[in-house]
Amino acid sequence: MLEALKKEVCEANKQLPEFGLVVFTWGNVSGIDRKSGYMVIKPSGVTYEELTPDKMVVVDMEGNCLEGGYLPSSDTATHLELYKQFADIGGIVHTHSAWATSWAQACRSIPCYGTTHADYFYGDIPCARALTKEEIDTDYEKNTGKVIIETFAKRDVMAVPGVLCQNHGPFTWGTTPKEAVHNAVVLEEVAKMATRTEAINNNVMPAPSAIIEKHYHRKHGANAYYGQR
Amino acid sequence: MLEALKKEVCEANKQLPEFGLVVFTWGNVSGIDRKSGYMVIKPSGVTYEELTPDKMVVVDMEGNCLEGGYLPSSDTATHLELYKQFADIGGIVHTHSAWATSWAQACRSIPCYGTTHADYFYGDIPCARALTKEEIDTDYEKNTGKVIIETFAKRDVMAVPGVLCQNHGPFTWGTTPKEAVHNAVVLEEVAKMATRTEAINNNVMPAPSAIIEKHYHRKHGANAYYGQR
Amino acid sequence: MLEALKKEVCEANKQLPEFGLVVFTWGNVSGIDRKSGYMVIKPSGVTYEELTPDKMVVVDMEGNCLEGGYLPSSDTATHLELYKQFADIGGIVHTHSAWATSWAQACRSIPCYGTTHADYFYGDIPCARALTKEEIDTDYEKNTGKVIIETFAKRDVMAVPGVLCQNHGPFTWGTTPKEAVHNAVVLEEVAKMATRTEAINNNVMPAPSAIIEKHYHRKHGANAYYGQR
Amino acid sequence: MLEALKKEVCEANKQLPEFGLVVFTWGNVSGIDRKSGYMVIKPSGVTYEELTPDKMVVVDMEGNCLEGGYLPSSDTATHLELYKQFADIGGIVHTHSAWATSWAQACRSIPCYGTTHADYFYGDIPCARALTKEEIDTDYEKNTGKVIIETFAKRDVMAVPGVLCQNHGPFTWGTTPKEAVHNAVVLEEVAKMATRTEAINNNVMPAPSAIIEKHYHRKHGANAYYGQR
Repeated sequence: MLEALKKEVCEANKQLPEFGLVVFTWGNVSGIDRKSGYMVIKPSGVTYEELTPDKMVVVDMEGNCLEGGYLPSSDTATHLELYKQFADIGGIVHTHSAWATSWAQACRSIPCYGTTHADYFYGDIPCARALTKEEIDTDYEKNTGKVIIETFAKRDVMAVPGVLCQNHGPFTWGTTPKEAVHNAVVLEEVAKMATRTEAINNNVMPAPSAIIEKHYHRKHGANAYYGQR
Repeated sequence: MLEALKKEVCEANKQLPEFGLVVFTWGNVSGIDRKSGYMVIKPSGVTYEELTPDKMVVVDMEGNCLEGGYLPSSDTATHLELYKQFADIGGIVHTHSAWATSWAQACRSIPCYGTTHADYFYGDIPCARALTKEEIDTDYEKNTGKVIIETFAKRDVMAVPGVLCQNHGPFTWGTTPKEAVHNAVVLEEVAKMATRTEAINNNVMPAPSAIIEKHYHRKHGANAYYGQR
Repeated sequence: MLEALKKEVCEANKQLPEFGLVVFTWGNVSGIDRKSGYMVIKPSGVTYEELTPDKMVVVDMEGNCLEGGYLPSSDTATHLELYKQFADIGGIVHTHSAWATSWAQACRSIPCYGTTHADYFYGDIPCARALTKEEIDTDYEKNTGKVIIETFAKRDVMAVPGVLCQNHGPFTWGTTPKEAVHNAVVLEEVAKMATRTEAINNNVMPAPSAIIEKHYHRKHGANAYYGQR
Repeated sequence: MLEALKKEVCEANKQLPEFGLVVFTWGNVSGIDRKSGYMVIKPSGVTYEELTPDKMVVVDMEGNCLEGGYLPSSDTATHLELYKQFADIGGIVHTHSAWATSWAQACRSIPCYGTTHADYFYGDIPCARALTKEEIDTDYEKNTGKVIIETFAKRDVMAVPGVLCQNHGPFTWGTTPKEAVHNAVVLEEVAKMATRTEAINNNVMPAPSAIIEKHYHRKHGANAYYGQR
C-alpha cells in the first residue's frame, strides 16, 4: 500500500539528521497521496536510523491508522489539518531545529533581510499566535493546525512555505516531502542569518521590496530563470 | 562484580564525546546498583577512548573504592550525595558542556521558553546557590551535592532532571546512566536555544503554563501519548 | 576548449561545500582565460557533487554560451562586469556564506579589527550601496557588477579582494579561481570574528593603522616575508 | 639532530587542525631543547598535511637556521623571546583560533567566570597592551614577545599559560609542545564560554575567589587530587 510514498517519506525523514535539523527523534515528515486521501507519516518516537519504509504509518484524513504496527507521530493531527486546507501541499515537515525554534520561542516572525530568504519565502516568515488554554487543553495538535491556517488567511501558503508555532517550533511544506525538507533547511539557515544580522546592526530594516520581488521571481513563476530548464 | 553496570556506565561515558558534550576528560557518568548500594563511576582524568568496563571504579556509599586499580572521578562525593537523597535516580552525569556551563557561569536558571524544554524539564532548570567559602574549603564535592539537594527542597527531582552548579557546570540524572546522558544532551540543546531566544527578543517571557503542562504530560505520566507503547 | 581552466573552475566550485561556504547550490566560482576573453563558470542550480569539468559553461564577454549543454550561473553578468573592469582578476566567487551574508544583510562594511583581516584585506571590507529600483528591475545582475565597481572607485581591488552586496551576500576574487575561494574562506572567518569582537566589546575601535600596515605588507609586496621563497 | 623533538613538534602542529584551532596555515607550534638551547618550529606557510618531522626548522637562540631547507615561522622571534625569559616553558603555540582572537580584537582580558577556566588558568587571561608604532615598525615579532613578558611582570607564567596579543591572537605555552596545544584548546573553550556568559548575563561578575583557588589547586601543586597518581 503506497509503497513509493512510504519510501519517499522514509528517505525524507532520514534527511533530517543528515541536515542537522534534529536531535534524537525531534522531528517528523509526512507525505500525502491525494488520490486515496491517505497520509504517510513517521512513527512516533522511533529513531531515524531504525526507520524503514515498512515502518511508516498510513492514516486516513480522520487519523485512523490503516497500516503499520506503529503509532503515528504525535503531531499527526496538525499535518492532517494542513493537508485538508491546502490542496497544493504534498509534504510537511516539523522539527525543533535550533535557530527556527529560537525565533518561535522569541514569539517573532522572521523579517526578510536578504536574498537568501527572498529566494524561497515571499515576505516575512510568520510566527503564529499563541493557542488559548482551551485550544491547548482540547485537541491540541488539531488546533495547532487551525492556528497555522488562520495565520495564512491572507497569504499564499505556497509562496511562504513555512511557519513558526509560538513557543514550539517550525513547520515547513512543499509539493513533495523532499521539497518540504529542503524548505526546512532554508528556514533554519535564514533564521540563523537573521539572528546574526540583528546582532550586527540592531537598527536594521527589512530588505527593500524591489530586491525581494526580484529574487522571489528569479526562482518562481513564469519568468523564473534560475537553474536548468 | 557488577559487570553489567560497569559496561553500562562505560558506554554512557563514551557517549559524552559522541554527543559533543565534553572536551578532553571534562565529564563523568555514574550508575548505582540499589541492591548492593554500590556506585560505578568513571576513573579520574582517563580519556574516553581508553575507557573499558574493567577500568570503571566501584565505590560504596562512603566513597571507599571496592574494585578497580584507578582513582574514581574527583566528583565522586557529589554523585554519592545525590544517590543517597534521591532513591529514584539510577544514573548521574556531570559535564562542562559549553551552553549549559555558560548559564551556570552567568548564575541564572534557564527559563522554560518552549516545548523542547517542557517535554523534558517541568519548569525552569535551576541554578543552585553559590557555595560559601566554608563549604568550598571543607568537603567541597560533598557540599556541592548538598547544595543541589537544597535546590530541590520544593521540587520533584525526577520532573526536573538537571541543575546548574553556579560558576561550575551542569549535573543531570535519570533512572539509568543512559537516560542521564540523554537529559544532558537535552539540557545543552535547551540552554543553547534559550540563549538565542533572549538574543532575538530581549523582553521575552517564559512560555504560558498551559503549553508547559501540555507538553510535559504528553511525554510523562499516566496520560502520556508520545512514542510507542 | 579551455580544458585546464574548466578543470580548475570545477575543482574550485567543489571546494565551496568542503569549506562549509554553501548550502545546496548557493554559490558559484568562475575563471577567465584572458587570451581568448572567455569565462568558465558553474552551471546554474547544479549540485556540487554532480559537477564535472565538462559540465562547466564557457561564455564570451557578452555572456553568449559557447560550449556546454547547461545554462550558466544566474550571476554570470555580475562576474563578467568585474572581469571587464579589473584586468588582474583571474577568478571570482559568489556565495551566501552565513557570516559574510549577515554583514551584507546588516548593510555594514566589516571594520578591520585585527591581523587576521589585515593579512588579506587592506582596510575595511566594503558593503556596496543598495541598487535602485531601476537598477534592480533592468539588468539586475549586470548592475550588481557596476555597483561593485563603483564601490572600488578609490580602492585597489587586488588589495581588498572582496565585497558585500547589500541585502545579498559576498563576492571575492583573486588571481586564480582557487585564490578567490581562499579569500572567500578568509572573509567568512573574518566576518565571524568581527561579529564576536563587537559582542565582546561594543565600543571596540578598528585596529591601529600601524598594525594593519605591518601585517598587510608582511604577506604582500616587495618586502613580504611570510611563507617560503 | 633533535629527531625526537622534531617529531614531537611536528605532531603538535598537526593537532592544531584536528582540534579546530586553525584555518589554512594560521598557527604554529615550537619546542625547545634546553641542553643545546636550540628551538624547533614549524616552517612558515606550509600546510599541516604536508608537515613531516624533517621539514621542521631548527634555530638557535638568535634565530639562525641550523637545519632544514625551509624558512621558520614568521613568528619565530616571538617564540624565542619567551623561551629566553621563561626557563620553565618547553613548548609554545600561536594560533588565530576564532574565540580567543575575538577577545584579542576586543582588547579585553578574559575574566575567570568559572571552574573550567580556574582548572587551568589562575586568574584572568590577560590581554597584552598594544605595541607602539615604533615597536611595530622595528623588530615587530621580537617586540611582541617583549610586550608579553611585560604583561607577566607580576604574574606566574606557568600558572597562567596563555595571553592575548591585542588585535592579533593568542599565544599559549606549557612544559611540552603537547601541553601548550592542550592549553590552546582550553583557552579557546574558555573564551567561547566567557562570551556566552556575558551574553546571558551582562552584569555578571567573575567567579568568587574561593572557588577559583579550590579548582586551581585541585589540579595543580602538592595537594592536587585530580587524575591518577
